[in-house]
Amino acid sequence: MAGGGCSCCVQLYGFLFEYDTPRIVLIKSRKVGLMNRLVQLCILAYVIGWVFVWEKGYQEFDSVVSSVTTKVKGIAVTNTSDLGVRIWDVADYIIPAQAENAFFVITNLILTQNQTQSRCPELPDKKTICKSNDDCKKDFAGTHSNGIQTGNCVPYNRDVSTCEVYTWCPVENDTFLPEPAVLKDAENFTVLVKNNIWYPKFGFTKRNILPNITADYLKNCQYSRTADPFCPIFRLGQVVKDSQQDFQEMAIQGGVMAIQINWDCDLDRRAANCVPKYTFRRLDNRESDHNVSPGYNFRFAKYYKDASGQESRTLIKAYGIRFDVLVFGTAGKFDIIPTMINIGSGLALFGVATVLCDIIVLYFMKKKNYYREKKYKYVDDYELGSSESYGTGS
Amino acid sequence: MAGGGCSCCVQLYGFLFEYDTPRIVLIKSRKVGLMNRLVQLCILAYVIGWVFVWEKGYQEFDSVVSSVTTKVKGIAVTNTSDLGVRIWDVADYIIPAQAENAFFVITNLILTQNQTQSRCPELPDKKTICKSNDDCKKDFAGTHSNGIQTGNCVPYNRDVSTCEVYTWCPVENDTFLPEPAVLKDAENFTVLVKNNIWYPKFGFTKRNILPNITADYLKNCQYSRTADPFCPIFRLGQVVKDSQQDFQEMAIQGGVMAIQINWDCDLDRRAANCVPKYTFRRLDNRESDHNVSPGYNFRFAKYYKDASGQESRTLIKAYGIRFDVLVFGTAGKFDIIPTMINIGSGLALFGVATVLCDIIVLYFMKKKNYYREKKYKYVDDYELGSSESYGTGS
Amino acid sequence: MAGGGCSCCVQLYGFLFEYDTPRIVLIKSRKVGLMNRLVQLCILAYVIGWVFVWEKGYQEFDSVVSSVTTKVKGIAVTNTSDLGVRIWDVADYIIPAQAENAFFVITNLILTQNQTQSRCPELPDKKTICKSNDDCKKDFAGTHSNGIQTGNCVPYNRDVSTCEVYTWCPVENDTFLPEPAVLKDAENFTVLVKNNIWYPKFGFTKRNILPNITADYLKNCQYSRTADPFCPIFRLGQVVKDSQQDFQEMAIQGGVMAIQINWDCDLDRRAANCVPKYTFRRLDNRESDHNVSPGYNFRFAKYYKDASGQESRTLIKAYGIRFDVLVFGTAGKFDIIPTMINIGSGLALFGVATVLCDIIVLYFMKKKNYYREKKYKYVDDYELGSSESYGTGS
Repeated sequence: MAGGGCSCCVQLYGFLFEYDTPRIVLIKSRKVGLMNRLVQLCILAYVIGWVFVWEKGYQEFDSVVSSVTTKVKGIAVTNTSDLGVRIWDVADYIIPAQAENAFFVITNLILTQNQTQSRCPELPDKKTICKSNDDCKKDFAGTHSNGIQTGNCVPYNRDVSTCEVYTWCPVENDTFLPEPAVLKDAENFTVLVKNNIWYPKFGFTKRNILPNITADYLKNCQYSRTADPFCPIFRLGQVVKDSQQDFQEMAIQGGVMAIQINWDCDLDRRAANCVPKYTFRRLDNRESDHNVSPGYNFRFAKYYKDASGQESRTLIKAYGIRFDVLVFGTAGKFDIIPTMINIGSGLALFGVATVLCDIIVLYFMKKKNYYREKKYKYVDDYELGSSESYGTGS
Repeated sequence: MAGGGCSCCVQLYGFLFEYDTPRIVLIKSRKVGLMNRLVQLCILAYVIGWVFVWEKGYQEFDSVVSSVTTKVKGIAVTNTSDLGVRIWDVADYIIPAQAENAFFVITNLILTQNQTQSRCPELPDKKTICKSNDDCKKDFAGTHSNGIQTGNCVPYNRDVSTCEVYTWCPVENDTFLPEPAVLKDAENFTVLVKNNIWYPKFGFTKRNILPNITADYLKNCQYSRTADPFCPIFRLGQVVKDSQQDFQEMAIQGGVMAIQINWDCDLDRRAANCVPKYTFRRLDNRESDHNVSPGYNFRFAKYYKDASGQESRTLIKAYGIRFDVLVFGTAGKFDIIPTMINIGSGLALFGVATVLCDIIVLYFMKKKNYYREKKYKYVDDYELGSSESYGTGS
Repeated sequence: MAGGGCSCCVQLYGFLFEYDTPRIVLIKSRKVGLMNRLVQLCILAYVIGWVFVWEKGYQEFDSVVSSVTTKVKGIAVTNTSDLGVRIWDVADYIIPAQAENAFFVITNLILTQNQTQSRCPELPDKKTICKSNDDCKKDFAGTHSNGIQTGNCVPYNRDVSTCEVYTWCPVENDTFLPEPAVLKDAENFTVLVKNNIWYPKFGFTKRNILPNITADYLKNCQYSRTADPFCPIFRLGQVVKDSQQDFQEMAIQGGVMAIQINWDCDLDRRAANCVPKYTFRRLDNRESDHNVSPGYNFRFAKYYKDASGQESRTLIKAYGIRFDVLVFGTAGKFDIIPTMINIGSGLALFGVATVLCDIIVLYFMKKKNYYREKKYKYVDDYELGSSESYGTGS
């Protein structure tokens, strides 16, 4: 029957020209047949419905690569005892002038003008109040010191004396924070957020200024969750309000806000359907029970030189709101690999239907012994004198 | 034959010491046998070829963690009516002095010198031109205002009068942008980009200054896509040119460029094969049809104090190019988990070969009834008087 | 036997009400039975143990979205010939005043005071030393030039003459770097790192200031790998030391450090178990063999105006350590999709047990021919005169 004379060739001949397929018992039973199809239907519904339709198992995914630029507009008027009436514009209240994915708006501040490197009394607190020079240690500087102690005890005001320090004098007094916030007008500032995204795997780019947005619309629009969900201009007060916070309260001690841009896209559909979704969230904690180190502030200085070359500075402790623009998202597009993997997995699950029905048929049905006898052929290891011969099949 | 006396033990004995394997029909047919092997070969080729070789299904993947520092070099000469001849060095044109993954180079600017907090006429436009004080509203400040209106109407120049505002005076006039760009020499600036990457899952780190780059080479090299693809020093003009843009045109209004560093690595191969790949792309939009809010610019100020303590500032509206260094990439390394998952999926797909051949054999071949009779054993639910008895097998 | 009269209905009837299950040979053999169960046990152990317990195959994963703010504390005293005794506070040594995920601390610097736009001799090097005006080229500016040559050769000091340039004069001389570093006290500065993370898929947020941290603890604690692993206040010297570097050596030329925060979380467990893990790493290279362009520095300037309106600046070449806060991590939570996919894959692997045992039984056992005869039914394509008839089954 076979080809070559060698045993290897016989095997290869068999391997190539023989086809093996499992032998099947076909049980004509309405109950079991229907049950089997029902279980298969469930698995099919799961594989197609959930994996493919809901979770888009036929797609490959990619994470977003993003670039953000921001531009704040607005002016604020302040009237403080230090500075008198003063107008603040964008060059005054945005520090630093530009950042990558964030911008910081000063809302409150403590100014210490005309500081020079010299000697002056420390701010009074437990460790710095002194009675005599013996209480002060020359060249000492603690973690919270403003400078290096000279070893002298000098009067801070009429009531208390404190250790003298060498540092930028006079030292900053940040005991009392202006309330309401100095730049409370910041609530009405607006910011234009330009965001360019890229999905490198799919070579897909898009801007948050959508193609149908005109220059005219952009001059006058303002983001609103319902009315103008695609306008990229945000009123700062609205951003804070949309995250269930109070701007004026937040303005006093500062804080960190997130402007989240979600770019989840299904690239099998039209590119025009891929649009940004804006949400807002407060990032620093305001829970009263463990409110350690609240708000957000930092110090910076402006340096001046007088005619004699003597340097002085204005120290600014700036409280304000940092807006982090967090861009995230996933794009999916049809790809053959995940499709095949999910189909393979789904086919394997189909086997479960047979296993389940077998258990029911062979263990729980009345005629289980009858079915078992049809499905199984018992072969005893020890029974060697078999009545069956090769070739006849059986 | 079995062990214990209890029914449970019999079952356990059967479970442990019986081996069940499907019964197979071996059909000796050249046609069907070859077809079956062909389908199996295709699936094997797909699983090995595509999933394992092409998509590296045997690897686990990790995303890059990156740190970037940049250093720009170059000087520019400008000659403007405001400033006369002036040399600009890196401390003048890089704002801020350093950023994390980006750097900004001023290419064009509008200077407004000696601004002080005082009163002056607004820039003339539709809303600010006035005939008399009645046209101006005291304490009013619109979105595009430069300050707070005092309520007076004052002459802006010989021809027009505008509402007077209290603000930093004189107000900036950004109607006309210098053309060509003031710092057009920026085209020849160079930037050294240092990039350190890390794949945390694999504990793999690498720098873009490759081990074989010498200090001498680094002093003189300049990136070129073909000649020096690993030199980390880029001429700004070349970066813009490589992304099909015109530097001098871009310099006028500013823009945002991406220097993309791709670190896709196969860590099963030698680490020396893991090298950065640089590409360049313009991130802001220049399409003429919806060219809203083009370019990139921001304002900052330098603050001065005169002898009397009066503060003044120089306001700079800086147009320029922000270069974002976008680092991305995926590293893969052999891992047992995805390998087994893909093998499991591949095996499940093997079952498809049998299903496919069965369909052909049982439905489309001439001798289909003959094969069907060999494969299937029909058992009728209602036929209870079976001629077969237990144990004989069949 | 069947329902309707049409052939289609017969097929549908058959499809719905017939149940097919493979016919099985049950071989009663201790050896093969045990082996089969052992292989199945291994696969089960692998699927459950490794995929589900170790790799958490039943979970869906998400990457972290993070926001970082930092606050440095500490003062430094310097005593240089240029500046005399001088106190440096946070507004002096942190440049820029705030960044998103990083902060830069000046540790060493080269000051060039009172620079004005004027003419002065270049720094002497190979290209700038001259004998006469003929050696200098008017309007020339090389890559490393400080300005534009005027064409004159002027004495730099008693010994050498160099080409005169028009630039900010006098030019900076960065040949000798102060050693030890000017702000060597920076080792004792501390930084409070506030980090807010978010897993968008699971709506899970957490701060690195854990709920059980009190304000009192936060005032006095300092991070230590063993004693205080959750204190978010780091001594800069300790950060550098923990990454096996020497702070004083690093302070001279500067460098880049990473403060890595790992937020790997199992969200099926209690949220309190999700805590940050801090590690530290040096990002710039210090290998002596290819130490090109070492350390980290940049230039910035402070601008002044004298009474006559003449602008001057102080140029600062700042060497220092940039601390990048790199936040990464993955959170996992139970999800039905990956669970089913892994179960499907595991089931497919179960088929391997049967294949393996079949190979052993049919090819390597003594009674292989006996088993083969039981498992297979040979059907010859050419043998048409079959002794079997339809319907009887076999």
